Amino acid sequence: MKKLVLTGAAGRLGSYLREPLSKMCDALVSTDRVADIGKTYPGERFVQADLTDLGAMEDILDGADMVVHFGAIGDEAPWGDILQSNIIGAYNVWEAAHRKGVRRVVYASSVHAVGMHSKTDVITLDAPHKPDTYYGLAKCFCEDLASLYWDKRGVESVCMRIFSCAQVNNARALGTWLSYDDLIQLVQRSIDTPVVGFTKVWGISNNDRVVVDNSKAAHLGYRPKDNAEIFAPEILADTPPLDNKDPANMCIGGPFATVELGNSGVAALNVVDDRKQT
Amino acid sequence: MKKLVLTGAAGRLGSYLREPLSKMCDALVSTDRVADIGKTYPGERFVQADLTDLGAMEDILDGADMVVHFGAIGDEAPWGDILQSNIIGAYNVWEAAHRKGVRRVVYASSVHAVGMHSKTDVITLDAPHKPDTYYGLAKCFCEDLASLYWDKRGVESVCMRIFSCAQVNNARALGTWLSYDDLIQLVQRSIDTPVVGFTKVWGISNNDRVVVDNSKAAHLGYRPKDNAEIFAPEILADTPPLDNKDPANMCIGGPFATVELGNSGVAALNVVDDRKQT
Amino acid sequence: MKKLVLTGAAGRLGSYLREPLSKMCDALVSTDRVADIGKTYPGERFVQADLTDLGAMEDILDGADMVVHFGAIGDEAPWGDILQSNIIGAYNVWEAAHRKGVRRVVYASSVHAVGMHSKTDVITLDAPHKPDTYYGLAKCFCEDLASLYWDKRGVESVCMRIFSCAQVNNARALGTWLSYDDLIQLVQRSIDTPVVGFTKVWGISNNDRVVVDNSKAAHLGYRPKDNAEIFAPEILADTPPLDNKDPANMCIGGPFATVELGNSGVAALNVVDDRKQT
Amino acid sequence: MKKLVLTGAAGRLGSYLREPLSKMCDALVSTDRVADIGKTYPGERFVQADLTDLGAMEDILDGADMVVHFGAIGDEAPWGDILQSNIIGAYNVWEAAHRKGVRRVVYASSVHAVGMHSKTDVITLDAPHKPDTYYGLAKCFCEDLASLYWDKRGVESVCMRIFSCAQVNNARALGTWLSYDDLIQLVQRSIDTPVVGFTKVWGISNNDRVVVDNSKAAHLGYRPKDNAEIFAPEILADTPPLDNKDPANMCIGGPFATVELGNSGVAALNVVDDRKQT
Amino acid sequence: MKKLVLTGAAGRLGSYLREPLSKMCDALVSTDRVADIGKTYPGERFVQADLTDLGAMEDILDGADMVVHFGAIGDEAPWGDILQSNIIGAYNVWEAAHRKGVRRVVYASSVHAVGMHSKTDVITLDAPHKPDTYYGLAKCFCEDLASLYWDKRGVESVCMRIFSCAQVNNARALGTWLSYDDLIQLVQRSIDTPVVGFTKVWGISNNDRVVVDNSKAAHLGYRPKDNAEIFAPEILADTPPLDNKDPANMCIGGPFATVELGNSGVAALNVVDDRKQT
Amino acid sequence: MKKLVLTGAAGRLGSYLREPLSKMCDALVSTDRVADIGKTYPGERFVQADLTDLGAMEDILDGADMVVHFGAIGDEAPWGDILQSNIIGAYNVWEAAHRKGVRRVVYASSVHAVGMHSKTDVITLDAPHKPDTYYGLAKCFCEDLASLYWDKRGVESVCMRIFSCAQVNNARALGTWLSYDDLIQLVQRSIDTPVVGFTKVWGISNNDRVVVDNSKAAHLGYRPKDNAEIFAPEILADTPPLDNKDPANMCIGGPFATVELGNSGVAALNVVDDRKQT
Repeated sequence: MKKLVLTGAAGRLGSYLREPLSKMCDALVSTDRVADIGKTYPGERFVQADLTDLGAMEDILDGADMVVHFGAIGDEAPWGDILQSNIIGAYNVWEAAHRKGVRRVVYASSVHAVGMHSKTDVITLDAPHKPDTYYGLAKCFCEDLASLYWDKRGVESVCMRIFSCAQVNNARALGTWLSYDDLIQLVQRSIDTPVVGFTKVWGISNNDRVVVDNSKAAHLGYRPKDNAEIFAPEILADTPPLDNKDPANMCIGGPFATVELGNSGVAALNVVDDRKQT
Repeated sequence: MKKLVLTGAAGRLGSYLREPLSKMCDALVSTDRVADIGKTYPGERFVQADLTDLGAMEDILDGADMVVHFGAIGDEAPWGDILQSNIIGAYNVWEAAHRKGVRRVVYASSVHAVGMHSKTDVITLDAPHKPDTYYGLAKCFCEDLASLYWDKRGVESVCMRIFSCAQVNNARALGTWLSYDDLIQLVQRSIDTPVVGFTKVWGISNNDRVVVDNSKAAHLGYRPKDNAEIFAPEILADTPPLDNKDPANMCIGGPFATVELGNSGVAALNVVDDRKQT
Repeated sequence: MKKLVLTGAAGRLGSYLREPLSKMCDALVSTDRVADIGKTYPGERFVQADLTDLGAMEDILDGADMVVHFGAIGDEAPWGDILQSNIIGAYNVWEAAHRKGVRRVVYASSVHAVGMHSKTDVITLDAPHKPDTYYGLAKCFCEDLASLYWDKRGVESVCMRIFSCAQVNNARALGTWLSYDDLIQLVQRSIDTPVVGFTKVWGISNNDRVVVDNSKAAHLGYRPKDNAEIFAPEILADTPPLDNKDPANMCIGGPFATVELGNSGVAALNVVDDRKQT
Repeated sequence: MKKLVLTGAAGRLGSYLREPLSKMCDALVSTDRVADIGKTYPGERFVQADLTDLGAMEDILDGADMVVHFGAIGDEAPWGDILQSNIIGAYNVWEAAHRKGVRRVVYASSVHAVGMHSKTDVITLDAPHKPDTYYGLAKCFCEDLASLYWDKRGVESVCMRIFSCAQVNNARALGTWLSYDDLIQLVQRSIDTPVVGFTKVWGISNNDRVVVDNSKAAHLGYRPKDNAEIFAPEILADTPPLDNKDPANMCIGGPFATVELGNSGVAALNVVDDRKQT
Repeated sequence: MKKLVLTGAAGRLGSYLREPLSKMCDALVSTDRVADIGKTYPGERFVQADLTDLGAMEDILDGADMVVHFGAIGDEAPWGDILQSNIIGAYNVWEAAHRKGVRRVVYASSVHAVGMHSKTDVITLDAPHKPDTYYGLAKCFCEDLASLYWDKRGVESVCMRIFSCAQVNNARALGTWLSYDDLIQLVQRSIDTPVVGFTKVWGISNNDRVVVDNSKAAHLGYRPKDNAEIFAPEILADTPPLDNKDPANMCIGGPFATVELGNSGVAALNVVDDRKQT
Repeated sequence: MKKLVLTGAAGRLGSYLREPLSKMCDALVSTDRVADIGKTYPGERFVQADLTDLGAMEDILDGADMVVHFGAIGDEAPWGDILQSNIIGAYNVWEAAHRKGVRRVVYASSVHAVGMHSKTDVITLDAPHKPDTYYGLAKCFCEDLASLYWDKRGVESVCMRIFSCAQVNNARALGTWLSYDDLIQLVQRSIDTPVVGFTKVWGISNNDRVVVDNSKAAHLGYRPKDNAEIFAPEILADTPPLDNKDPANMCIGGPFATVELGNSGVAALNVVDDRKQT
């Protein structure tokens, strides 16, 4: 692997990926719209760029083997913002990849593309899209975009539907946790698997209480090692009875299943802390 | 039904719907971005408006019971154009419907949302999205948008996946034809069915050689009457052997399955006539 | 066919079946717990009996080829009543059939065995039980009882899941109507099909707006002729907008999906007229 | 269509196809291992040949557009005979088609490839193979052969799983009848459909009591017109109660489900008349 | 958890649960129809009661958070006995739970609700009911009852389909064993999972030769630790060839698949020892 | 187990099985068409025989409990050779087993029976046959033959679809490896499971990158221990980018998906080394 590109390198998850990605290639180009991401790792180079600038994306992807695309607003947001970063920005990434002959996009999709499904359904990767927010709707869009670019242009994609990649501090996360180590394994496998075509995969750890079925992505070789059950005794002891008619508790999207859609402007957006874990 | 709104009233299919829709309600508001749609039918009123103007959409949908949304670019087009009309425009329709308490969106989705599926698979309505063009990708987006607005905001939608609503003049259309009468029946049922939630349905006539399975939409009561087989002898006599490795012949999206994605500008878009029938 | 037995002969649907059944056999024994069912048809004989009396059932089924079992409380009722008539009574019918070597039970099951499924799901006959009332729960019990008697004792059963066999006077019935003629055809096919094992079938007419998929019962040869769509214009004109969050409108069980379970005694049971059509 | 080849032209079903096939092409070459098939139709030419002779098959298929392959032993037979005619002979047909650039094989497969499935299962075309005889086993082989030649060599095939193409004279045939007219329609559609790839289809009429689901072959446009139900009153009146534990009555293969496998030589083969209808 | 209720506390499995349950709550009320269950654990209180007494059940469930319902006849028995304990008794438990606002019923369902399925089918939790005995029929009834109380009244249930919770002493148990430790884990997860709605789960250990697929219950977090394979060498060495046409060997219900239905009175019931393991 | 028979005892995989099989029975009869297989193990006896000789097979299977059938051409070969060894030879094994009352055939089927499926589909054991070669076609035939002999004659079979049982030396094998130890476990379980009827199972190790789903064979108790991932770093480092449009890289059959069918004679067969691992 000569050259890898990471978008969203300044983001919470992007930051974690910089070091392991830098070890998987000769040259890692990390990009974000912020001006600076601090000290770079050996082999890493930072380029400031905005996803909404197709020309800039083309420049950055020139000569790259693959792009790991984590650049996007990472939470529910007003429609206009999601449109710019998460839809138009994504189009630019796939289109630039196509124009520059990049083999594969490894993409941070999300449970929120299917967040309105019930957790007692334990859905497979083939379950229909059922987004819970504009954020999730944009993830749906990107998965369909990835499908299109594979079928029509031969650009491969792995759509990693990331669950709760954050500290485990509530009952839902016992089922939805994705540890940082497992995230890194998942990204690695998405990169090192020789042929992936268009692949979807649940980004979730080996939790006892896992709420989805990953069997349709077995070819990717992702075998998570961590298990949120170690946090169960403490968390369950602190969990009051939950309202079992509340979509936030019944749907795999969790709090996103009830959050107001982000169409009224940032100030009006009632973002609860818990959603940060998606 | 007091008030219905029709978008895309000047379009090819929209034009056909104006008269029947005007008979299904007290007041039909037909809208399009063109300046004029000619003589109006009894009960019909024309309002010029652009789908990309949310405020205008809100004004038009104020007090409406339902909106029949056919306004969009009706063919593959450059990404930037699809984005404006078929994605942002659609968001505006559903958002305006929500803000104004409109009960339902009856939407002209398309086979091209799933056009890369093989015709020998005879897929059901639950088959995953598999778009063949930006045009189809936007249809995928709208279906997911419709799903979101039902789950989160209670706006109902019927997504009619329209096949080839045009003259039957090639072998593919023997399987994919949607007659104008059947289109009208489908729209009527999508309107008069008391409760639809989020419903997808294939917009296709009762062709012998139908390439999809509509059983999952039975509750809508759509029972097409026309059958393209009457055109078969003449058309098949004129059809040379078709390349069975060509996606245009194997995929249900037909020529869209091979057309270049519309990302290089209008002039560069190589639109073949046949695609007009989608 | 030498001898047929009909239970529930005085009931609303049972009454309709007496004449056609009397023509399908040498001797029809009609039974009910009421004292009298009026004039008998040629070949018909009435025997008063209570389903809860196993001995009486054995006497009546002695020498019969098949039993058409319609005897039961035909509406939601207090648990204790359902238990006696619809559970214990049904056990007695199957057990008596077994003891007397009766080949087959043709049983009036009901949509209410699966009434909590959504109408937009258009379920097949394999969908899991999802009862909406004690009435429906007893139907579930009988279907499982029928399965058991086939697997363990070789008594065949056809479980006809009857929808709305009554006058079409509301929007739901446009999808759920079972005409009397189609009921009679269904019962005939359930009797004359040489081998049925354990078969479930939707008892529904050929309505445009049918809400279930009968393809798994094709071997029975039931082809309904009537279509409630002829009533659609008048009924839909009189139908106000329906609450699409109300299970009575969204579930195939209709009003039963919201009716109070019948556990507080007859007087307290709030039976709406519409439910009579189940 | 310039040239069509028909194998098994002297067989019971082959004989029926000669005239209609002769009208579908400029030149029909009918072949069989018998010496003579009588008077030929306009455009028809007879060539005696044995399927087990690959060279002969190559000569006959030279220049053909398609081959309609009905040549085989049409009943259960000793393994050695099935092997020669129905396995080796079939290989020769597909291999000759490949060598000579023939576009498509229209093949007389049979219900007996899946004859051990229960009729109450109403299987789709995707159900696993479950042969009931050596005869059925050879049909399985040919379907897999057809799959291989499509995937690896681009030779198209339609595998028509023919049921009971004969006079309706027993209860099973009420469900399994394929009328001659419907057979001809099926063959025509298998020929005139422009692209088929590898397609399986049930060869069965529009019987009320049909025991399989043809929805996965909808693209072929086969819409049978005949219905064995017209024979039902007479046949059912003459049908004694059938043993519902006997595979001959429960399985869709009918009598083949219980017939001894043909491995002991012709003389020892206990062929019942009814099987002739397969 | 303030108060838990255990029914069937004197039963074989109930006895095992008393101690672990007493540690999961402030107060455990153990109940059974026997007069005494011996020494109680800290926090445990015994109340004698009969399941068939609804008033008694209401008294006992008053103020409880959940009820663990193991009270029932634990083997095939005459219909009249099953009716009283396993059907009417179960109704009383769910109804009392509803009346007293109890959140959840954790229920000892059984493999025998689906015992007539073949072990080579490796069914999922969605497979249709297929009971093997009156005992299994009552389990079916309770699962449907649980479904009804969730859909209509918001009482949650976990239906644990317990396999062979006993010493491993025959070949079947190598696949069907549920160790006591795994039973306890399963009950714990059924209690501590914050939201379960209506959940079914196979109660089976992590046996190599497991005969069912638990993936649809993954959200419950049940991860069995024990594996009957440790007993395999000894048991298989002692196992003679088994009749592979005998339902007792082919069906997942094991001996129950052939046992006579319990309808002739206790004395006549031919109970084999092996069935004790269900 | 008194007597076991192993066919193909001189083959690559057969050789590995001789010792473990000799320990599982009183007498192992190893057979092959070669003249000698070297030193025998305690309890083992070698008999030279050709699979194409039914009489010889009958003699060898006389008195045997089971036969482990690995005798066949182990690679793509000309049709005539496959026909003799892999089709006729297999028929002889099952037929001899039937004639001699042998309980079970444990059969070396292959991934190549379904090799044209895409690896990103992660198919279950129920996926349709989709052979990639004559070699694979013969495996399909044998599986159907096994199905027939179980349904009609009660001869049990386990069809082990063996993947790459050889040294791991390419990227594909990371997903498809079957270690020798796991092969032995699989054969043991196929033998020691008391009842198997007709069972298919994937013969594959516990590789991270496994490309199929074995859940439908859970009853067999096969739990592979080895994992090719230990070879991943070295192999992936040496793997150049693979053509993701090449069936050899996309299909689970690997190189067989593109190899020329073996119909032109041995000399013309272009066998690449990698295929040796199948």
